[in-house]
Amino acid sequence: MAHFDTEYQRLEASYSDSPPGEENLLMHVPEGAKSQWHHIENLDLFFQRVYNLHQKNGFTCMLLGEIFELVQLLFVVGFTVFLANCVDYDILFANKFVNHTDSSKVTLPDAFLPVDVCSARIRDNAFVIFVLIISGVFWLHRLVKFIYNVCCYWEIRSFYINALKMTMSELPYATWQEVQARIVEIQKEHQICIHKKELTELDIYHRILRFKNYMVAMVNKSLLPVRFRPPILGDCVFYTRGLKYNFELIFFWGPGSLFENEWSLKPEYKRGGNRLELADRLASRILWIGIANLLLCPVILVWQILYAFFSYTEVIKREPGSLGARCWSLYGRCYLRHFNELDHELMSRLSKGYKAASKYMNCFLSPLLTVVAKNVAFFAGSLLAVLIALTIYDEDVLAVEHVLSSITLLGVCITVCRSFIPDKHMVFCPEQLLRVILAHIHYMPDHWQGNAHRYETRDQFSQLFQYKAVFI
Amino acid sequence: MAHFDTEYQRLEASYSDSPPGEENLLMHVPEGAKSQWHHIENLDLFFQRVYNLHQKNGFTCMLLGEIFELVQLLFVVGFTVFLANCVDYDILFANKFVNHTDSSKVTLPDAFLPVDVCSARIRDNAFVIFVLIISGVFWLHRLVKFIYNVCCYWEIRSFYINALKMTMSELPYATWQEVQARIVEIQKEHQICIHKKELTELDIYHRILRFKNYMVAMVNKSLLPVRFRPPILGDCVFYTRGLKYNFELIFFWGPGSLFENEWSLKPEYKRGGNRLELADRLASRILWIGIANLLLCPVILVWQILYAFFSYTEVIKREPGSLGARCWSLYGRCYLRHFNELDHELMSRLSKGYKAASKYMNCFLSPLLTVVAKNVAFFAGSLLAVLIALTIYDEDVLAVEHVLSSITLLGVCITVCRSFIPDKHMVFCPEQLLRVILAHIHYMPDHWQGNAHRYETRDQFSQLFQYKAVFI
Amino acid sequence: MAHFDTEYQRLEASYSDSPPGEENLLMHVPEGAKSQWHHIENLDLFFQRVYNLHQKNGFTCMLLGEIFELVQLLFVVGFTVFLANCVDYDILFANKFVNHTDSSKVTLPDAFLPVDVCSARIRDNAFVIFVLIISGVFWLHRLVKFIYNVCCYWEIRSFYINALKMTMSELPYATWQEVQARIVEIQKEHQICIHKKELTELDIYHRILRFKNYMVAMVNKSLLPVRFRPPILGDCVFYTRGLKYNFELIFFWGPGSLFENEWSLKPEYKRGGNRLELADRLASRILWIGIANLLLCPVILVWQILYAFFSYTEVIKREPGSLGARCWSLYGRCYLRHFNELDHELMSRLSKGYKAASKYMNCFLSPLLTVVAKNVAFFAGSLLAVLIALTIYDEDVLAVEHVLSSITLLGVCITVCRSFIPDKHMVFCPEQLLRVILAHIHYMPDHWQGNAHRYETRDQFSQLFQYKAVFI
Repeated sequence: MAHFDTEYQRLEASYSDSPPGEENLLMHVPEGAKSQWHHIENLDLFFQRVYNLHQKNGFTCMLLGEIFELVQLLFVVGFTVFLANCVDYDILFANKFVNHTDSSKVTLPDAFLPVDVCSARIRDNAFVIFVLIISGVFWLHRLVKFIYNVCCYWEIRSFYINALKMTMSELPYATWQEVQARIVEIQKEHQICIHKKELTELDIYHRILRFKNYMVAMVNKSLLPVRFRPPILGDCVFYTRGLKYNFELIFFWGPGSLFENEWSLKPEYKRGGNRLELADRLASRILWIGIANLLLCPVILVWQILYAFFSYTEVIKREPGSLGARCWSLYGRCYLRHFNELDHELMSRLSKGYKAASKYMNCFLSPLLTVVAKNVAFFAGSLLAVLIALTIYDEDVLAVEHVLSSITLLGVCITVCRSFIPDKHMVFCPEQLLRVILAHIHYMPDHWQGNAHRYETRDQFSQLFQYKAVFI
Repeated sequence: MAHFDTEYQRLEASYSDSPPGEENLLMHVPEGAKSQWHHIENLDLFFQRVYNLHQKNGFTCMLLGEIFELVQLLFVVGFTVFLANCVDYDILFANKFVNHTDSSKVTLPDAFLPVDVCSARIRDNAFVIFVLIISGVFWLHRLVKFIYNVCCYWEIRSFYINALKMTMSELPYATWQEVQARIVEIQKEHQICIHKKELTELDIYHRILRFKNYMVAMVNKSLLPVRFRPPILGDCVFYTRGLKYNFELIFFWGPGSLFENEWSLKPEYKRGGNRLELADRLASRILWIGIANLLLCPVILVWQILYAFFSYTEVIKREPGSLGARCWSLYGRCYLRHFNELDHELMSRLSKGYKAASKYMNCFLSPLLTVVAKNVAFFAGSLLAVLIALTIYDEDVLAVEHVLSSITLLGVCITVCRSFIPDKHMVFCPEQLLRVILAHIHYMPDHWQGNAHRYETRDQFSQLFQYKAVFI
Repeated sequence: MAHFDTEYQRLEASYSDSPPGEENLLMHVPEGAKSQWHHIENLDLFFQRVYNLHQKNGFTCMLLGEIFELVQLLFVVGFTVFLANCVDYDILFANKFVNHTDSSKVTLPDAFLPVDVCSARIRDNAFVIFVLIISGVFWLHRLVKFIYNVCCYWEIRSFYINALKMTMSELPYATWQEVQARIVEIQKEHQICIHKKELTELDIYHRILRFKNYMVAMVNKSLLPVRFRPPILGDCVFYTRGLKYNFELIFFWGPGSLFENEWSLKPEYKRGGNRLELADRLASRILWIGIANLLLCPVILVWQILYAFFSYTEVIKREPGSLGARCWSLYGRCYLRHFNELDHELMSRLSKGYKAASKYMNCFLSPLLTVVAKNVAFFAGSLLAVLIALTIYDEDVLAVEHVLSSITLLGVCITVCRSFIPDKHMVFCPEQLLRVILAHIHYMPDHWQGNAHRYETRDQFSQLFQYKAVFI
């Protein structure tokens, strides 16, 4: 990992060229260049927003996306409450009969309880009311954030249109390089940055990636506690989106974090003297955040289960094989990131390596699992074969209870099994695949060389490239 | 497009070497070489048929294909009339009950009306009778054409067998180059062409592609009115199979067309003097053809809707994603065609570029559409998830009205949405893809260079490579 | 096929370096090297087992696989007998009604006959009893073989662990080269082979592949009667797993076979004198084996039909296109094998050529079949379109008898048809594909060169690469 060290030193050096604190100093600038975009105070955040708006493909898409997120939240809570309180499942499951005067068919609306019964049931249920209040508060919080965001990005939008001379409809078809080149041009004209006369691409990257670079450095130096050695599972990595959020909360923007504002460390953290005291303070803060996490845990868990159910049930039904798909883990995304690499550059690099990485991992299906999967698939397939044959002969069989469910479940079971059985005509050449992956991810420990077919290499690589199911 | 001009001049020059009119002049040929294939009068048509028979993989395949076409026509009309008049939908939809003495099950034949009721209903319906007469006339026309074709191609078949010494079963596995080489040999022996002693490959190409070359030239010179600028949609191209058929009717073989017979322009069109008068006559002909088109329009429209319904409903049900597939447009096929390029050569060239072209177009999913599609997929997926879960728990839910339809429709809806969401691991490199396409289609305006990621380039390319749905 | 001859001579020469009979002679070995693995008597079988255990990924996988095989056998017989005797199909097909006091739903257990009725039916059925006895005997035979195998491989396992110092969990991730290198090392230490001081890789290969090399030689020299010329079908190859098993029985290990034990020919076969007499004896043995085959034929046939039904019905339902998939034929696997090529090396070589071989064969869809398939797909698609439209409008249509079966069967029919219709955008370049295949299979007759698009080449290649359905 020698290249990380040198790169890190280069990075440090570049930061000390323009230390974060310097931003508050005012340079002498020509008077005539004043404009709306002259001397932007919080340039880090400004550039980050410019970058975000580009990545989100313009203002309308961003707005729409956020509105949909708000609606999704309402929908998930509302639909769950509705399902739990307002549906008469006895009618749906034909345990109770409906008296129709006109037709003998049961329709969906028959199964819905009348509005008054339904609202009475909700009103009587303290837990439902509690959930509704919690999610109402959370939703209002999101709404306020949304309105704030709209205001901020409206400004960015007008920066794009008036200063950079790009319409929102052009934005998705412009590369970031083009946008950046225009920003560099703009600096000459409007003097948006106050410390420097000329803005280079590196300056812009530094400002956008300030926190990300810190995170990359901490992951590379193994400063974050993400590796564990539980008794049975062996060396493993635990780095979820929740953990990442907490880290960012602690270090960068939570109350009492290490940073004074969005771009400079608090002065006390720069001096080496009171290190121990600061560490103590940080420890107590982490404890409090941990307790807060523990309290919010059930709510978050329920939310995640509901959201996953609504999002993925249909996918699993349609293509159960996707359960076996893999993606780059959050840890891998952090570990394989270069310093000063923007999100879209990292994603494009990892995407290029995705196919080879998938193939590489598929070379290593556990032989034991394969044997079991083959036989489970055979037994399930036998039962399914008989059911299918009976159904084709006379579809009244489907009217027998649980036959249809059995067919569905056996089908899913077989598909899952099949994803553990390697393709007979697969060519096994891990060494080559690993070399292709290396070309894109730019990282390989020496002991992987020549050992691509070993289990240890596979295990270490799987820390970077995990099952999508785990990711979810 | 400079290369088109020079190529066109070369083409013109080559035509004047053997002007179409010359074919009627008789050259001095040795007496001993006379045979059935000696001095073929209409050599253009003859070569076109030889080429067609090769492309259709022999006589049996061609015959079978045409018979099936006739049967399809009968089937579509007959089945539609049957569905409209002879089915009691109340029984199918279980709104009316059938009294069976032996069993309680409703069978399909129960829903069919008795023959006398059915024929009475047809006899009373004037519109049905009108449709039947129209399609009967059309079918007889096709039948006559079919019988004529059989006779013609029977001759070509014996030419293959007796002159070229190729059996019909060998034909699908012989390349056109091989067939052509034998024709060139045959000329030396049988003197099938009367103007020249030796026949070159270029001669054969010229004769087969005479009209096609004119069309290519007219499209390349933008002489045909296929480009429009409707108010909102911007620059677009309208060139359907119907329009193509009409153009050919007007120029090449309709009554009063520019050509005297299948190979030579009428003499009056060769003189520049009475150009205006001829243009007037052409304009009035086009008017009459337009009126005929307008009158036939409803019949053709109904036919096309019926045919599309029968052909594509099943495909859309099975893989709705194919709606989003693309293919080379008719305009593209004409525009990208070289002079003197046979159908199979063009198709092979375009097929080679197909994969890259598809990928290129997929790089440009509208980001707005993506956001909407993602969220519609989420909401539809949530409802589907609940229905699936209920179904697996107890399949009696399926007996509730519209639940099964909802599951089907939600599934289709989600699949359509998914086709608008780009793959997460897709690598975006339009520049490279466009270069691969170029290598096969041999055409790229200068302003595409370096602008492969721009919307304008994509728009212009999409004129050549359109949605299959539009094509249909 | 000149390379086969020279290779065969080299092989013969190498065998005469260490003639099979010599193994019984004891060489002088140092006294101190004695161990459990010192002077293994049947080294051929020993090495074969070492290789097998490596290929089966260790002892646990092998054990599990064999146990599952025994269970499958029990399951297939038991389940078939159960289906034939213990299910009341009238209840399943709703021809008879069940009286429930609590619910009106028919459940699966309702359709099962009570245990006493069921066992009485089995007891009364002589054929069922006969089948049960036959399969019981066969199963016991397999069980004994299994127990014997477990003992043998337990020894191999301890050889791996104690002598080669490899745990079973490491085994799947070690290449055969690594294992072999350790065996060569071991020889120096333990003197496992008694004739030679040093063991080379070639020695190990020879011992593992002794019989396989004989088979490869016999197939290459066309000594085995596997090619036939039935009246209509033309030149074809018949070489099934059953035939292969019989050949091995006759030549290698059956009672009265050519080999004295597992490594040396009987002495009488080595002398040229009594050739005719030996041929006579062999002929009579083959006759007896043929008669035994004939007697066992119905049992084997029923078993294979049952096994195929249970294994493949579900696959055909799920992806009917896989019926059109191809794989290397048994004959191809023998014909394309080099001398001294282990199974995994052959499979990896053939797997690399698989994709190109599939594509090559797909270039040659019969044009006649394509025309028929297109039209059958159209007619089936039309009916399906109407049924789907009706179903979406009102799903009560599904309750009509045979509608659901029709939808399923029409769907399967269309998918099968589609596998005969070539992809429109397929690029046809058989010459290149054949060259890619050649690079992996290392075999091409001279008359294929330049004739890759011919039917004869295709036919000959299809002998090596046949339909999977035929393989099954």
